[in-house]
Amino acid sequence: MSCGRTQSSDSQYARSVESLRVALCQINTTVGDLVGNADLVLRDLARAEEAGCDVAVFPELTITGYPPEDLLLKPGFIAANKEQLDRIAAATTGHCVAVVGFADGHPDVYNALAMIANGRVVGTYHKRHLPNYGVFDEQRTLRAGDEPMNLFRIAGINVGVSICEDAWIPGGPVPQCSAGGAQIVLNINGSPYRRGKMVVREEVLAERISEGSSPIVYVNLVGGQDELIFDGGSMVVDDTGAVIAKARQYVEDFVVVDIPVEDPKPIATSFPVVEVSAEPTSRPEVPANDVTWLDPMPELYEALLLATHDYLAKTGFSEVCFGLSGGIDSALVAAIAADALGPENVHAVLMPSRYSSDHSVSDAEVLAQNFGIDHRTIAIEPGHAAFLEMLAPSFGDREPNVTEENVQSRVRGVLLMALANKFGWLVLTTGNKSEAAVGYSTLYGDTAGAYACIKDVYKLDVYRLATYVNERHGREMIPVSTITKPPSAELRPDQRDDQSLPPYEELDPLLEAYIEGDATVDELVQRFDPDTVRRITRLVDISEFKRRQTPLGARVTDKGFGRDRRLPIVNRFR
Amino acid sequence: MSCGRTQSSDSQYARSVESLRVALCQINTTVGDLVGNADLVLRDLARAEEAGCDVAVFPELTITGYPPEDLLLKPGFIAANKEQLDRIAAATTGHCVAVVGFADGHPDVYNALAMIANGRVVGTYHKRHLPNYGVFDEQRTLRAGDEPMNLFRIAGINVGVSICEDAWIPGGPVPQCSAGGAQIVLNINGSPYRRGKMVVREEVLAERISEGSSPIVYVNLVGGQDELIFDGGSMVVDDTGAVIAKARQYVEDFVVVDIPVEDPKPIATSFPVVEVSAEPTSRPEVPANDVTWLDPMPELYEALLLATHDYLAKTGFSEVCFGLSGGIDSALVAAIAADALGPENVHAVLMPSRYSSDHSVSDAEVLAQNFGIDHRTIAIEPGHAAFLEMLAPSFGDREPNVTEENVQSRVRGVLLMALANKFGWLVLTTGNKSEAAVGYSTLYGDTAGAYACIKDVYKLDVYRLATYVNERHGREMIPVSTITKPPSAELRPDQRDDQSLPPYEELDPLLEAYIEGDATVDELVQRFDPDTVRRITRLVDISEFKRRQTPLGARVTDKGFGRDRRLPIVNRFR
Repeated sequence: MSCGRTQSSDSQYARSVESLRVALCQINTTVGDLVGNADLVLRDLARAEEAGCDVAVFPELTITGYPPEDLLLKPGFIAANKEQLDRIAAATTGHCVAVVGFADGHPDVYNALAMIANGRVVGTYHKRHLPNYGVFDEQRTLRAGDEPMNLFRIAGINVGVSICEDAWIPGGPVPQCSAGGAQIVLNINGSPYRRGKMVVREEVLAERISEGSSPIVYVNLVGGQDELIFDGGSMVVDDTGAVIAKARQYVEDFVVVDIPVEDPKPIATSFPVVEVSAEPTSRPEVPANDVTWLDPMPELYEALLLATHDYLAKTGFSEVCFGLSGGIDSALVAAIAADALGPENVHAVLMPSRYSSDHSVSDAEVLAQNFGIDHRTIAIEPGHAAFLEMLAPSFGDREPNVTEENVQSRVRGVLLMALANKFGWLVLTTGNKSEAAVGYSTLYGDTAGAYACIKDVYKLDVYRLATYVNERHGREMIPVSTITKPPSAELRPDQRDDQSLPPYEELDPLLEAYIEGDATVDELVQRFDPDTVRRITRLVDISEFKRRQTPLGARVTDKGFGRDRRLPIVNRFR
Repeated sequence: MSCGRTQSSDSQYARSVESLRVALCQINTTVGDLVGNADLVLRDLARAEEAGCDVAVFPELTITGYPPEDLLLKPGFIAANKEQLDRIAAATTGHCVAVVGFADGHPDVYNALAMIANGRVVGTYHKRHLPNYGVFDEQRTLRAGDEPMNLFRIAGINVGVSICEDAWIPGGPVPQCSAGGAQIVLNINGSPYRRGKMVVREEVLAERISEGSSPIVYVNLVGGQDELIFDGGSMVVDDTGAVIAKARQYVEDFVVVDIPVEDPKPIATSFPVVEVSAEPTSRPEVPANDVTWLDPMPELYEALLLATHDYLAKTGFSEVCFGLSGGIDSALVAAIAADALGPENVHAVLMPSRYSSDHSVSDAEVLAQNFGIDHRTIAIEPGHAAFLEMLAPSFGDREPNVTEENVQSRVRGVLLMALANKFGWLVLTTGNKSEAAVGYSTLYGDTAGAYACIKDVYKLDVYRLATYVNERHGREMIPVSTITKPPSAELRPDQRDDQSLPPYEELDPLLEAYIEGDATVDELVQRFDPDTVRRITRLVDISEFKRRQTPLGARVTDKGFGRDRRLPIVNRFR
């Protein structure tokens, strides 16, 4: 922590106003877009100034975007991010102080917070607890802060600061700086969504309060970044642990809160205090804000919409295509695409084979019409037949098997990629997590594409989401027949999923215990049918090579098939 | 460090024999093959006993294989690895002590070394420095050891122990335990190859000696594991920094060395000493061992052979296929496959298109005959034509562009995958690092396959290796015309690489500076043509999504496109 002016650590202070006015600036940053991210800061800082705020608080690593991964290894990247910090500093000419995340230092780099006022950076704080588990790799590129802590006096109130994981540590920096005299603690975050995360966050903040922390201002990032979804949901927790202000989930939000502080009780600060800004004069009323957290199914659906929207927007694409089979997975992807991008940007491709059923084609057509999306039909027979012809001299009189099924799926993959290449579209894949787990997919076939919208959604949740889509739209957008018919890949006559796999009501809990629960086979056979356990876990293990070549997609569980599950392909452990 | 019997830390000792007889047990473990890895230990322990060794030293994480990655998060995996440790302990009934790596502890897991004698584990050591950079993620799953250090008295000599990274730390555990009384330091490793690594290792060990370390026994793993190649090259460095014994690179090896210790000078130990084993009685002569390190090009080629061989062997495959175009990349892959797996296991597929040149087809045929590998020709015209027909209603009168080129490449990908599916082969891809860097490849086309033999080899090195292959075989196995003709993808009439890319003599150094050197564009324009820099670095950046879906392959540079380069796909930094 580097400081500006400090005063003695045992000073006392009594304040004439009763609250700190804070702007929760929940912005949608993009990794590497240093100028664009700084522009968002300048936009919200001006709004905060206008609203009479004392401090505008931005998410973790505001300027670089989060997580910047190995970009932090480039000295030129660090230098460029500091240029934007200087640009922001030059704009702090009014009353409102800016709290901004950036990457500090060289050659050791810190996940840092800058306290900015009066045209300059008056102090910094370096994140002390660097997560290096799950989706996080911060110890790879960052050094943990270990400088003595200090407080910042903003508008006459002693404020402590911390970054994300710091607030998750029992007895960590948050209660520590409260014990040291902080009347309010600011915590800036890049905290990714997974199902149930809002409840966990509220519990964690309440725990810090129970350890003696002062009120906590929790500002989170919002937006999709590769497989991660930052869900926003910024909040303020008072000294009873109650949430007294909320920002919306899954959208940029700007929330102004007056946070009461105890007054006129004198505060004995034991940490050095950096003087940042003077008390405000008169200011406007705080606008009303009434936000509630979403229920689980709308929350999950909004997460998928944001992830899909941002992956396209941030990589420079606007239109998508995908194979629409008449089955439930591609129906859900169609809904997500239409709701996230607008139906005018969505192109469904029906690719029936000699084995496709009539009802599949008609269900697909009805769905495309319901959503108002462009759709075309390309029968794959010419490609299918051409491959069988080209392969006949090699295959001789061998019986057809999964090889010929894969060929059909790959013909579809080539068609989708060709359409995407020709028209500048992006291919969405339609596989769910249950399939990805057991390898019930064709590499370079149905896994071909740039973004896998529902790759971390188990099949049972696919059904729930499809039902929710119809509720949300208030009518039968996804045909009920699509939801109720037995699932099939339709790659041979009368094929059904349940010929190869146990019913999803059995499969999904087993997969969850094996994947998210890290249970071994010996443990699972205590809870599930032993033969099923051995067969399914083996399928999960040997499908690792497939998953490594599939596109990334929205992570919504505690352990997606991506950054947070790193298993070797060469692996003989069963 | 947990100890068995200890004696006072200031004890003195003079020994009647002048050397410790050590077996460098350079074995090829497989991740997750706990029983198989323990079997290898038992095999070499018996050999060491027979050779009259005092101690048999095995590589890092011997029992789990290295790196076990997130398998370490499964409590059942840790328990199963300890069962194998007990099995090994039960076999130490003779004079020879075993030094074995394993995963210790629960819930915190340590990268551990076990000192095993007389049927039991007499002491353990926990790795103190956990690498978390480059290809390493040890801080993700492991906890660093921080127990007080001690020594082990083996056959009357005080021995210190350490694990891999511990020996790379200036003033770290190696010189520390020497200062504490160790007469010899054992260091067990899972150190992956990259070009020039042997020199670096010798320098690092010499540095530890210069800091006061006693002679160091450096035992490395050998074998391929996913993208990593462990190259063996175990060695012993004496107290002048000279290498006095070497194990071969790229093969399992078993080397017995008598390491002289200063005698009769009394040794004042300041660390606690665990009594492990008594002095030996008479024993046989040490067999002669005369190993030299390989020159750079043979070293690189052997690395690629081992990687390719082990990926197949350890995933349970024996035969491969790939597209043989008549170009230099697939020619080199053919040589690697034939030399690594035996020509009888190699199937080349010639897949000419309407744009293929006659010389390409004839060069490919000559090469297949030279190596004695199975080859077949499948003209892709039927598939190519079928796709153009299926796509015609969508494409209308749009001009042909890269879309149609990609279709050809993808038809080949589908054919190779179908052959592999039908016959149980594994598809090798043939792209080099220069192509992977700039995205000069077709996703699901030439990138379709399970293992990418030369994905980390720059094009200029492809040429060098092709020339070396002919030297190695003593005749023109790869036709000289394949080496000398201008490179072309042959996806449109008269196409040549240099129509899209700068000459490889310009391209490769620029790529190396950008990728391995982490230089930014602003830095590169000082050294290379600015327009080329901007164009090429942009191609590298926007190809990240492609590389994420390509198969893994042998890593031979300081920064491969895999575990050691983790850049976001959504990334606007240029």
